Amino acid sequence: MKLTKLILLFSLLCNISLLHALQQSSNPIGIAIHGGAGTIIKEKMTPEREKAYREKLTEALNAGYAILKQGGRSFDAVEAAIVIMEDSPLFNAGKGAVFTSDGTNELDASIMDGATVQAGAVSGIKHVKNPIRLARLVLEKSPHVMMVGAGAEAFAAKHGLERVSQYYFYTENRWKSLERAKSKGAARAGETSRKGSSDSDKLEFITREKGTVGAVALDRNGNLAAGTSTGGMTNKMFGRVGDSPIIGAGTYANNQTCAISATGQGEYFMRLLVAYDVHALMAYSNKTLQEAADEVILQKLEGLGGSGGIIAMDKAGNVAMPFNTKGMYRGYVDNSGRTIIKIYKDE
Amino acid sequence: MKLTKLILLFSLLCNISLLHALQQSSNPIGIAIHGGAGTIIKEKMTPEREKAYREKLTEALNAGYAILKQGGRSFDAVEAAIVIMEDSPLFNAGKGAVFTSDGTNELDASIMDGATVQAGAVSGIKHVKNPIRLARLVLEKSPHVMMVGAGAEAFAAKHGLERVSQYYFYTENRWKSLERAKSKGAARAGETSRKGSSDSDKLEFITREKGTVGAVALDRNGNLAAGTSTGGMTNKMFGRVGDSPIIGAGTYANNQTCAISATGQGEYFMRLLVAYDVHALMAYSNKTLQEAADEVILQKLEGLGGSGGIIAMDKAGNVAMPFNTKGMYRGYVDNSGRTIIKIYKDE
Repeated sequence: MKLTKLILLFSLLCNISLLHALQQSSNPIGIAIHGGAGTIIKEKMTPEREKAYREKLTEALNAGYAILKQGGRSFDAVEAAIVIMEDSPLFNAGKGAVFTSDGTNELDASIMDGATVQAGAVSGIKHVKNPIRLARLVLEKSPHVMMVGAGAEAFAAKHGLERVSQYYFYTENRWKSLERAKSKGAARAGETSRKGSSDSDKLEFITREKGTVGAVALDRNGNLAAGTSTGGMTNKMFGRVGDSPIIGAGTYANNQTCAISATGQGEYFMRLLVAYDVHALMAYSNKTLQEAADEVILQKLEGLGGSGGIIAMDKAGNVAMPFNTKGMYRGYVDNSGRTIIKIYKDE
Repeated sequence: MKLTKLILLFSLLCNISLLHALQQSSNPIGIAIHGGAGTIIKEKMTPEREKAYREKLTEALNAGYAILKQGGRSFDAVEAAIVIMEDSPLFNAGKGAVFTSDGTNELDASIMDGATVQAGAVSGIKHVKNPIRLARLVLEKSPHVMMVGAGAEAFAAKHGLERVSQYYFYTENRWKSLERAKSKGAARAGETSRKGSSDSDKLEFITREKGTVGAVALDRNGNLAAGTSTGGMTNKMFGRVGDSPIIGAGTYANNQTCAISATGQGEYFMRLLVAYDVHALMAYSNKTLQEAADEVILQKLEGLGGSGGIIAMDKAGNVAMPFNTKGMYRGYVDNSGRTIIKIYKDE
């Protein structure tokens, strides 16, 4: 009699976990990534280069999606996708980062966990191979949200994160971009131009190189996460911090609403708090993800004279990817497992 | 006949400018400041020390208010009030800044102009006497919003801003605080504790020193401005960036709604985007300044386990100053010119 009861209890427990697993497996999952927004037009692209971008974006998406499909965390999926893009010279993040006016590489990254609303961010990183991993370390192993420069490097070293020399970040393309920018005298012109002023073409010399990378994801447990990584702007003054490592500007995630990663002219994104603003419009104005994302990018950013775009995902797995530039490297995997990659505006 | 017409026209024009001046002089003006929130209780305060705080807060308010009364910009009033508090060893900003775990002083500041929604911010500053002036310089003379460390220092030097050695920031009190924090082994304990985790008393060792300063103001032209300056947390890991230099977290101003400056446990303010959130609740949820400010500090910040406060001013000159600590050094001048200074909770 006692044994029968035990068997009954065991079978009941089994059914509950099975039910839970079934329920979980029906929860939507999804991942979206970007590799930067800017003047990306078909006429200036070679078929080989376009193929390389599409393949690398697919690889990054697949890496993140594999984690989600196995029931892993969106936080891990975001990191995995970004690491692949950081390791590729195609993007302005990690290997392939642009040069500062000083001829150095200074990398920024941030990551946010929508479940706990905890965040980690780093800026001015010169010797860490994958800044997104350092951002995660700041979240998990420090009492802080943001660390910069030598202090952040020391923290990375202490925790055994893979470090590299500045030469690791050298790519011929990016060096030539710096030389072109310098020869245009952008350093001096740019410095005296005001943000959002009519000197916009001077500012353009230091902003035309795009390729910030980012990812947003939703896992089976309904947790959202977002991350962003960048080398900043070619010929930027050393010490400049853009929107990518600023929680609420370049990156934001909150299970209540959405996960966001941004790319574009960082200064405008910082002044507008672009990532948080999408959340706020959803939370306080009952906008849908698409409505909120469009309002922030196509109306507010555009209205202020800024350019760029975002990738956004809500708790139902819906994706929005508005941008006001010629193109944005972007892609997502939907709940059915279908991978979509896009580069140009009309695609 | 022609002369009569001219005289008529002249007198008309005179009346119009007089009317404009009269109208302007009836526009509300106001300024509010804070000198940090924390465990400030009457029992631990000497009468001399309390008097010194009240006098310095009054001096800072008067400096800012004088500018507003003469028709000057809120942006200038905010800077003037903060410079006075930076120059006083009473506050954890400028002279009187706390020490990092490395024994250095690293200062942060930011300023925002509500009329243009332009902003300037600096972090990790070691040799600039008044970081708020450098934040302003970033806004006015660089294409960037935020600059940190050596790059920001070089920018300051280039523009002739007053620079000082690290010894300038030394005060015996703050050094003793560092020694006390270190002897408690806070460096190691704090580093492994998670933000918002139950390790809150470990975190406390590096956050108990308060004294961030800030100001918000409204001028005759209806323009709002906000600024914040800090030395951060005693025994903080060097390289840590708090909320004070983060636009949307520690500082925000927008003529559409309000101007905000925050003080408290920076990490919570960054995760909550405290300053921008007050704006968002007013803009999207039609909350009043007081309602929005209270919701963010007394509900959201409190709910996440963080502590601190804000000063807030709306376009009508209304003031809100919620905080969830024992006290907050604070004060304001209202439209009638009356100066109010408060320190403790029940005051």
